[in-house]
Amino acid sequence: LDQGISSPVKRMLNSLSAADTAHLIESSPPKIRSLLWQLLDKEQEAEVLQELSDDVRQYYLDQMNAAEVAEITTGFDPDDLVDLLQQLPDAITQQVLSSMDAQDRARVEHILSYPEDTAGGLMNTDTITIRPNNPLDVVLRYLRRHDELPAMTDSLLVVNRQDAFIGVLPINKLLTTNPSITVREVMNTDIEPINAMTPASQVAQLFERQDLVSAPVIDDDGKLLGRITIDDVVDVIREEADHSLMSMAGLEDDEDTFAPAMKTAKRRAVWLGINLITAFVASAFIGMFQETIDKVVALAVLMPIVASMGGIAGSQTLTLVIRAMALGQIGKSNTFWLLNRECIVGLVNGLIWALVVSGVAYVWFGDGIISTVIAAAMIINLVVAVISGAALPIILKTLKIDPALAGGVILTTVTDVVGYISFLGLATLFLT
Amino acid sequence: LDQGISSPVKRMLNSLSAADTAHLIESSPPKIRSLLWQLLDKEQEAEVLQELSDDVRQYYLDQMNAAEVAEITTGFDPDDLVDLLQQLPDAITQQVLSSMDAQDRARVEHILSYPEDTAGGLMNTDTITIRPNNPLDVVLRYLRRHDELPAMTDSLLVVNRQDAFIGVLPINKLLTTNPSITVREVMNTDIEPINAMTPASQVAQLFERQDLVSAPVIDDDGKLLGRITIDDVVDVIREEADHSLMSMAGLEDDEDTFAPAMKTAKRRAVWLGINLITAFVASAFIGMFQETIDKVVALAVLMPIVASMGGIAGSQTLTLVIRAMALGQIGKSNTFWLLNRECIVGLVNGLIWALVVSGVAYVWFGDGIISTVIAAAMIINLVVAVISGAALPIILKTLKIDPALAGGVILTTVTDVVGYISFLGLATLFLT
Repeated sequence: LDQGISSPVKRMLNSLSAADTAHLIESSPPKIRSLLWQLLDKEQEAEVLQELSDDVRQYYLDQMNAAEVAEITTGFDPDDLVDLLQQLPDAITQQVLSSMDAQDRARVEHILSYPEDTAGGLMNTDTITIRPNNPLDVVLRYLRRHDELPAMTDSLLVVNRQDAFIGVLPINKLLTTNPSITVREVMNTDIEPINAMTPASQVAQLFERQDLVSAPVIDDDGKLLGRITIDDVVDVIREEADHSLMSMAGLEDDEDTFAPAMKTAKRRAVWLGINLITAFVASAFIGMFQETIDKVVALAVLMPIVASMGGIAGSQTLTLVIRAMALGQIGKSNTFWLLNRECIVGLVNGLIWALVVSGVAYVWFGDGIISTVIAAAMIINLVVAVISGAALPIILKTLKIDPALAGGVILTTVTDVVGYISFLGLATLFLT
Repeated sequence: LDQGISSPVKRMLNSLSAADTAHLIESSPPKIRSLLWQLLDKEQEAEVLQELSDDVRQYYLDQMNAAEVAEITTGFDPDDLVDLLQQLPDAITQQVLSSMDAQDRARVEHILSYPEDTAGGLMNTDTITIRPNNPLDVVLRYLRRHDELPAMTDSLLVVNRQDAFIGVLPINKLLTTNPSITVREVMNTDIEPINAMTPASQVAQLFERQDLVSAPVIDDDGKLLGRITIDDVVDVIREEADHSLMSMAGLEDDEDTFAPAMKTAKRRAVWLGINLITAFVASAFIGMFQETIDKVVALAVLMPIVASMGGIAGSQTLTLVIRAMALGQIGKSNTFWLLNRECIVGLVNGLIWALVVSGVAYVWFGDGIISTVIAAAMIINLVVAVISGAALPIILKTLKIDPALAGGVILTTVTDVVGYISFLGLATLFLT
């Protein structure tokens, strides 16, 4: 990408939507990324910035001062601006806020006052509100005075004089009902408005279960604050689903695929360090049985099998329970049943594979005691593994530790240690 | 849940939406599940069935005959009915189809003719179409003749006499524009309709990038077939994101959290069996070095560290690349850069942790050669691990093998084998 071809690339960029440009930038290595960014004009930069994932956006924000951020974010929707401000140091956020006009600033500060992962943090303030007493043709005339309606307006929000939420008038009802009828007669009052402090994950479940396009947000007094739209909820769903996958590998949800080598190495080093500690813990337990291994070297050959099968069985249960917790399926009433079920599953699979493993071990080493010992160790480790896999995320969650992040590391330590101790311990008892 | 309390439970079920009832059923162990199901009346059963995940729904479908399926699915939207029919044996599908009236059957058969994971399989046929020459007030009067509009109708689809798609009239534009203007003058022709054979994952990306609520679906000749709505796309996004997480643990995307013990044990046994083979492969390589281990037992204590660090480093890269592939970020142009970056990351982290490991090993066993050998093995295995982690999913995808399912198993085999061979092999060279 030298000087000569920058003009066709620029034409190509102009033909792409902001979202597609953001995708192109996210799919490019650092050098091409900065060349692409340089080819964008100010207006495109602003649009693309809204579409970038947090990790990549942070990189560009870090290079801007407060005045530049203020300039580039003029015209952002309050909720998008808030997303961006939440990534900036407080000092810059304050400068950007002070450069806004009073009304916009009040809106943004209001949303900023709610945590990022609540309904309040997700909402936008671009609601169209109407009064219950008006007939529909007045509403239709009122709408026609707008140049356009806010994106994803599938319903108008009905409020009383105190701005308290009363109900919802779906646009589709407005279009199919006799215009002389009043809003009160056709509005939908079954809709449960969302409290601003509701966690984002619950908002996502609400949208998914009720197939919503938008939903009203209220404060504790029932006053209408704004509305949440499905596009922002889709982002929540995507991030939540990615969270389990990425955290289990010790990665950020929003990890930049094409981050530079040194940045990547630094981030991953931490995770490797934590896992190294657990690996040493497992080794220390093997170390306790050096004498036994010294006498029967076949144990060293077979011991990783017991540990690794425990790891696999445990991580299956762990993954299942973490996903179920994300879907809100796990509660006090079914935890015991689940632990009991896993116990049976561990026992059944332990028995099956203990048989196979001991058979192979017997053929390999021709030693009845070794093959009996590995069978017993396999059953012990598989039962411990699946019970740990089910119990760990539930325990971690009550301790407010992220199960997706910490569960795998702790589980591997458990299955390795139990695997080595049960196999080498039983071998020490019966072989020496 | 005995006879006595069934009536309050029934009242509770009646107050829940179908989606909430489905969630309650999915969160319940088998016995409570079937009690809850028995308390539903026919109409509720039909609604709940639509909301259940595939795995749980299959269970109830298996208990119905064709006549029962036909009865319960009367009134389903064509796309929901198709989802359900795709789960049934062909014979039952045919019987259900033959019990429908000609027009509905034609619609359903049309959708059934497209694979489940394409735009055609996702679409619904409940479009409201209008002609370009009409003024908007004619359109408004036409809409008012409907009792209600199909759910998620955020735009009307403009077609010509041959039913070819021409453009889209957003409802919001209809409400804010002078009614004497014709459809042609205000319709949006920038909207790219979706070809029916477009993969569902691409449809999801389109909806996410363009913040769509609904989108038109056409055939190869440009004829309008139907429309896709965001609620079905959200399901695709959820399933896709879950797919990577669940497949990496050898689980079904839609795995029933509360499946009975024997069913669970049977499913998991397969995955454990596959992993047992790889564990034996790794053991076979350790077996090659029995003599060395017999002489220096410290090697048996330390060898799992090298293998496990390789596994962790590799699975980080594997997860990152699998997620990036799901987001459509990986192509020919950036694969080389990515492999090169991972190579550097592996080398840097290999050097860092080799130093730490060799230091600890020296303090532990006081042997300079062992600590040098483990450092070298660590560097080799970490570099191999991250390159495999990046290359494997790309290779598997070109071979049309699911990287999320097969990637982890193959990677673990590679990192175990390389870990043991490099450590024990170098030890054999320098220690004996």
